[in-house]
Formats: sequence, C-alpha cells, structure tokens
Amino acid sequence: MECTLVKKIYREAESFSKKEVKISGWVRTIRASNAFGFIEINDGSFFKNVQIVFEKELENFKEISKITISSSLTVEGEVVLTPDAKQPFEIHAKKIIVEGNSDSDYPLQKKRHSFEYLRTIAHLRPRSNTFSAVFRVRSLAAFAIHKFFQEKNFVYTHTPIITGSDCEGAGEMFKLTTMDLNNIPKDENGDIDYKKDFFGKESNLTVSGQLSAETFALAFRSVYTFGPTFRAEDSNTARHAAEFWMIEPEIAFADLEDDMELAEEMVKYVINYVMENAPEEMAFFNSFVDKTLFDRLKNVVSSDFGKITYTEAVDLLLKSGEKFEYPVEWGIDLQTEHERYLTEKIFKKPLFVTDYPKDIKAFYMRINDDGKTVAAADLLVPGVGEIIGGSQREERLSVLEARMEELGLNKEDYWWYLELRKYGETKHAGFGLGFERIIMYITGMANIRDVIPFPRTTGSAEF
Amino acid sequence: MECTLVKKIYREAESFSKKEVKISGWVRTIRASNAFGFIEINDGSFFKNVQIVFEKELENFKEISKITISSSLTVEGEVVLTPDAKQPFEIHAKKIIVEGNSDSDYPLQKKRHSFEYLRTIAHLRPRSNTFSAVFRVRSLAAFAIHKFFQEKNFVYTHTPIITGSDCEGAGEMFKLTTMDLNNIPKDENGDIDYKKDFFGKESNLTVSGQLSAETFALAFRSVYTFGPTFRAEDSNTARHAAEFWMIEPEIAFADLEDDMELAEEMVKYVINYVMENAPEEMAFFNSFVDKTLFDRLKNVVSSDFGKITYTEAVDLLLKSGEKFEYPVEWGIDLQTEHERYLTEKIFKKPLFVTDYPKDIKAFYMRINDDGKTVAAADLLVPGVGEIIGGSQREERLSVLEARMEELGLNKEDYWWYLELRKYGETKHAGFGLGFERIIMYITGMANIRDVIPFPRTTGSAEF
Repeated sequence: MECTLVKKIYREAESFSKKEVKISGWVRTIRASNAFGFIEINDGSFFKNVQIVFEKELENFKEISKITISSSLTVEGEVVLTPDAKQPFEIHAKKIIVEGNSDSDYPLQKKRHSFEYLRTIAHLRPRSNTFSAVFRVRSLAAFAIHKFFQEKNFVYTHTPIITGSDCEGAGEMFKLTTMDLNNIPKDENGDIDYKKDFFGKESNLTVSGQLSAETFALAFRSVYTFGPTFRAEDSNTARHAAEFWMIEPEIAFADLEDDMELAEEMVKYVINYVMENAPEEMAFFNSFVDKTLFDRLKNVVSSDFGKITYTEAVDLLLKSGEKFEYPVEWGIDLQTEHERYLTEKIFKKPLFVTDYPKDIKAFYMRINDDGKTVAAADLLVPGVGEIIGGSQREERLSVLEARMEELGLNKEDYWWYLELRKYGETKHAGFGLGFERIIMYITGMANIRDVIPFPRTTGSAEF
Repeated sequence: MECTLVKKIYREAESFSKKEVKISGWVRTIRASNAFGFIEINDGSFFKNVQIVFEKELENFKEISKITISSSLTVEGEVVLTPDAKQPFEIHAKKIIVEGNSDSDYPLQKKRHSFEYLRTIAHLRPRSNTFSAVFRVRSLAAFAIHKFFQEKNFVYTHTPIITGSDCEGAGEMFKLTTMDLNNIPKDENGDIDYKKDFFGKESNLTVSGQLSAETFALAFRSVYTFGPTFRAEDSNTARHAAEFWMIEPEIAFADLEDDMELAEEMVKYVINYVMENAPEEMAFFNSFVDKTLFDRLKNVVSSDFGKITYTEAVDLLLKSGEKFEYPVEWGIDLQTEHERYLTEKIFKKPLFVTDYPKDIKAFYMRINDDGKTVAAADLLVPGVGEIIGGSQREERLSVLEARMEELGLNKEDYWWYLELRKYGETKHAGFGLGFERIIMYITGMANIRDVIPFPRTTGSAEF
C-alpha cells in the first residue's frame, strides 16, 4: 500500500471514511491500558497530529504500548470519522511497524520548553508545535514571494554572494580568504599580498544585492533577488542576525510612488497567502504566541497604507508631547520608538515615511529638488517598526558622481554601476525586505533566532 | 496612460489591434530616412523586440532619427497588426519621449560579440539576445523548482551558509573572518585565537546543506534547500564555479528508489515548465546555441530514465572495446568520458547509475548488504554526464559510527547529526542538483560563466 499524507486525510476526511490507509510518522504522545491505547502521530506533512487507536489484538501490542516519544512508526488501518471529537477522524490500526525507536532521553518530551532551551537543540526543535509552525510558514512565505513576482513577470536574479569590492563599508563585512592565516603571504612592502588569495584580491560576503540587481533591472525592467546577505555587526539583539535572507526588487521606468505601490501589494499578498495556506499554524500563533496577531494582520491587508514625509513625521512627533528616549529633531535617524509611535499611536496602520534627509541615507538614493532630502521610503508597521527600506535611485550621472565625491567614494570601484547611467538610463526604484523580519511579523515570534533554522549571530554558529 | 508590457501585447495581439498603448524600453536597432523610420525596442518584459514606426510629423522627429542604440524611450502609439510580416504587429508612434540617451561608445552594438568579451561587460550583457534568454530561463527554472516541491508539500528550508564546523574537508572551503589579517590575535601557545573571531571559532562557507536538511526532513518528512554553495577549488574549467546554487531535497520514509523517482519527476517538470513558459527563448537556443537541443530535451521528458548498477556499468564499459583516456576498472570513480559513453552511446537517454563502491562515496551513504557498495544513485544525461548525485542515508547509528571511525571523522563534530539516529530514525534519502548544471543543460550554453549573472571563479570576482 502507498503511504498517504496526513494533510491529505485532514483536507479530504469525508472521502477517506472507512478506507484503509497507510501512514508513517513520529510519536508525539501515547497512552495505553492493558486492552487498548492511543497514539498521536505527526507525519511532518501537516501541523496537526493524527490519533491512532490500537487494541490488544495487534500482534506487537506490548511493544507498541511501551513505544517512546519520537519513535517512528508506520501504521496501516481504517479511517473512522469522529464528528463529536476535537479531531475530525482517527485511524483504527490493523498493523503497526516500528521504523525506529527513540532513546528515552529524548529531550523534547511533552512538557513546555523555553525558546532559549530549544535553540540548543535546533536539530530537534522543528519537531515541536511552535517550530513546526514557524518553519512551515517560512517556507510558504518564501514561495508566496516568488509567486507574487513571477506572476508579475519579474526576473529572479541571483546576485553574487561573494563580492570583490567593498561597496558598502568594510566594518560590517565578513572577509573571505583561502590564505593560510598562520602564514599570510606578504608583498615586497610587507603588505598582505592579496594577489595570492583565491580571487586575486580582497573579497567579502555581500551585504546587499541591490547594485547588481540594478544592472539587471535596466535589461529586464523588473527583477528581484531573494538570497542570503550578511552583516558582521557586533549587535546582540533580538532583531539582528549575521546571516539573513533578503528580497530586493528593482523596477525600471518607475518612481518612488510605483515602488511603494509594489511594496504594499507584496506585503498584503504574502500575508494573504500564508493565512490561506497555513490556517492551522496561524491559529496556533494567534492563540499561543501573540493574541493580537489576527487583528494586526487583518488590519494590514485591509488598510490603505499611510504616507507622510519625514519632515511631517518629525513635526508630528514633536507636537505629540510624548517623551522619547532619543530626542526628536529634523535630521535624526528615526529610532524604533519613533517609528512605532507613528504607526501604532498616530496612524494605527502601516505607514510609509518618505523623503528622508540625504545625510542619513545611502549615496545611490535620488536627490529631491530641495537638495537636502532624497526620494526614499521606509515602510513602518505596528508592532515592529521598519520592515522595508526603499528608494528611487539616482539616475543622473553628474548628480550621482557629485554625491559619491562628497562621500569620499572611489568612482573606479563603481565603474560598472556608473556606466548604467551612460547607456540608456531611466528612472528606476527598488526596496529591500528583510525576510526574517516579515516572518517575525507574520508569526508574532519575537526573536530572529526563532525564525531561522540554524541562526548565526555574534559569537554563535552552532550546528 | 499606463504602460503596457510588450509581452502582454505579443500574447494578446488581436485584442490590442488599433488600440492606443504606451510602452517604455531600450533601443535595439534604428533605421531612419528623411520621412520616416523604424525602431526596434526591447522593454525587458519579453525576449522579442517590438517595431516602432515613426514619421516626420513627430514633433521631435530629428532627435528620434538620430537616437543611439540602448537609449531608453517611452512611446505612445497605435498597435497595427502585420499578419504578413515576421512580427505579428507594430506600433505607429504618436509621441516618443527620450528617457535617457546612450553614449555612442555603447559596447553592445549590433554586431556579434564573443561570450568571452561579453563576460567583461557582465553589467550590460543581459541586454543581448543570448543573455536575455539565459537569465529569463534561469529565473523560470528556479521558480519551476519551487513550484514542483511546493505542490508536493515539501518545506523549503534555508540551511546555513556560514558553518561553524568543517564537515566536508577544509581544503575546499572558504574561510570567513572578521579578524585583522595584519594583526591576527594569538593565544598563549602562539596559535590563532579564534575565540576573538566573530563567531568565537573557525567558520567557513557551506559546501552543502544536506546534513542540516536531514534534521528538517526528520521533522517535516519532505524538505528541500535551494541556496548558494561554495567551493574553493582551484579548477579553472567550463563546468566549475566557486559560487553556485544547489537544490537538495531530502525525504523521510523513503529509500533510493523513491529518491530516483523524485529526481526523474523533477527534471522532467523543470524542462516542461521552461519549454512552456519560454518558447521564444528556447527556440532561440535551438537555432543559435545548440541545434540538437529540442531533440535532446524531448528525449529526456519522454523517456523512462534507465537504471544500472555501477558494477554493471563497469562491465558494459569494459566490454565496449572503446579506448578511454582513463582506463576502466571496478573501484574507479567514473569520469565524464565514461558517463557520457554510457548515457549517449549505450542507453541514448538519461541514466541512473546506482550502488557505487563505498570507498569513492561520502560517509553518510547507506552501506549495502554486500558491505562494499553504498545505496547511491547518480543521474547521467546525454551531452553533459552527471547532473544529480543522490543516496539513501545511513540511518543505522552503529554502522554510521563505524564508518566515521574508519574515515577518521571526529564524532563530536557531528553530535547533532548522530542524534538524529537516536530519536526516531527512519530510512531517508536525498539528492543534490547543481542549478547551473541544469541551466546549461536546458539552454545548451557550454560555460558555467555564461549562466551566472556575475560568476565567481578562480582568480575572478569582478563586478
């Protein structure tokens, strides 16, 4: 007999009534008397367990009665609908085969464990309810993002992970080498001889695929990246990881308005997709992780996102009378406390803040006519603060070059980026979405370490 | 007026007849007389160009007549069907706006360029026909892979890029550090003090996500990875890159037969998806890159893949009478010449070779009852050789430990991997597909550098 996925039986329970099925999975709970017993099995295909009823007529009744949590079983039996029970059906076992026993020191017994403890057993935690839900949602959200952009004819672009140039500030980058660190080759001046390194020059791990993505946007019109990015920042917070995944769409013949429209549509699409395709997981998060979750997400998908300029935002914060830890004045980088006040207290919905002072934003953002702000837009959401940072890109070669000079950037390092402005430039824009940030937002999980299978943070690269 | 994508007009040309449209794109060719002219524009949404007809009644006729290749334009005009022409329609311009001029030294003029030359302008090459087709196919194939696995309820798993342990041989791995290479911290014994490094220990870039994926397969039953992997191998060939993307499905309650079935289904699915969704690009490859392409791919999707054991394969090669550069005997690792002979000359279709000698395969592969071979399966395809390597994994703790000891592997480094065998182990299997390899196979492109947006190879990390 072929194995049936538990998900399929749940989704089509009626049609399985009184049918024989075969399922395989892991024991989550077991209760047994001398005459019969109940086993809850999770087969990995679905958030919920299936209840197996077994009786002493089973040939290996004794063995099964003593089976340990997390042992793997194959069960053949009949599906019996149970309209009055919590579960819509159970399986009455005719045969149970033990695939693999689990040692009695299995660390994930039924009692509740702290998330901190579960991080120390990251190889087992996806077997718990919470992490089963988190990582299934992560998978669905990733697919939703691909689906969204592919349906819009965007070209998925794998921008390089290894970069040979240090385009965004070396302090935060991981260096990459194949040199013998005990015996680093030196040139005649006593400097490190990078010519002897793998790529013949210094190399680092990428912090953003944007500049590369722009080259593709100016060929394919609409592209997106979805890949890992890295920060060697020594910041041990619940929101920062050294390795995380980022989505960076880039659109040609488009301005900041188009960019914000795309971001809003994407966020709503991903939330809707996950709500539709993981209703059990989402109900679990709403009950056990964050009771405001559904209200918050429903508010997001049904709102028209707000829009104000940075200058207006600063005015609103100053007028609010609120005492902030970081004092507000025009020119400061907004802190999470400011962002959350704006989106939670004033607007009560997602909010784009646009046109930031150029001095707190990156060199490639398009300078506005006022000469002091840039066409940037950050998306702030209730409960989190910023989840998206975007901008229209500076397409005017002379303006861009002047800006780079002002910031002391070496034009030779960016020759190909600057050439885009020589050969058929057009207005274009893009944004970056931290994938883990949106997973935290969708699940209510508060620590980035708990939405990454094997997180890498300052001082920690276990597993 | 809203912009319309050229792809949409091509796909629904009839319904656009005599309608006004607005399009934006880049000039590919221009011919003009004193009275009228033709511009071919590519808008990035579609492989084919659209022909714009413009006449001297245009306000800026003179400027447009002299427009340079790769300049970006916005055109408003009427769609006129041209049933007798090569293109199904053209657009009669009423208004043409120059978005951005292109300098006359634009390096991608109409004449043909070598792929080698185009690599030196990787920021512009997606504007050429060949690379426009390559990278659109790459995007579609990536999506096809996600779609295939998601439809089968597989969980997409982001396994870590940074690894804190050296599980597969340090020689081929990139080292990662934030230490000052001019002043590497040393401990009291004069050894490098990795406690002072970012993660508090040595760290490397991943060569495979498989071991991590196994942990998730034993929770979710069926999972897949799709992410970048790295080799610091000093091999300057047309088939090797230092950075490439890999797909690694892992399935629980499954053996080698299930694994091969999955691989065959996936390969056929991806080819079919690309053929259906990129017919223009594929026709281009079949005409200009590899005239045997369609025959080859049709053979793949319509064949039942062959299956022989390694031992049978060696017998067939020995009996063939063929003179190989590398002599054949039982125990050798099959070379590309052997693989191609088997799949091209003998079987004339894709072929799984199974049950390789354990000494030439990895420690985690399941030992067969004969004690000298392992339950491995490589997929060989005509024209390329191996594109997939898979195996059933050794689930028996004692056998796995004995094998690791034999190979001198340190069990402490693999404590979590070994624990999977203690807590409800089951038979499971998986395979790895090099994404670039299948893109080369589908497009006929012969060099891996030409299917990666910005390739990283020995001595080269440009852009």
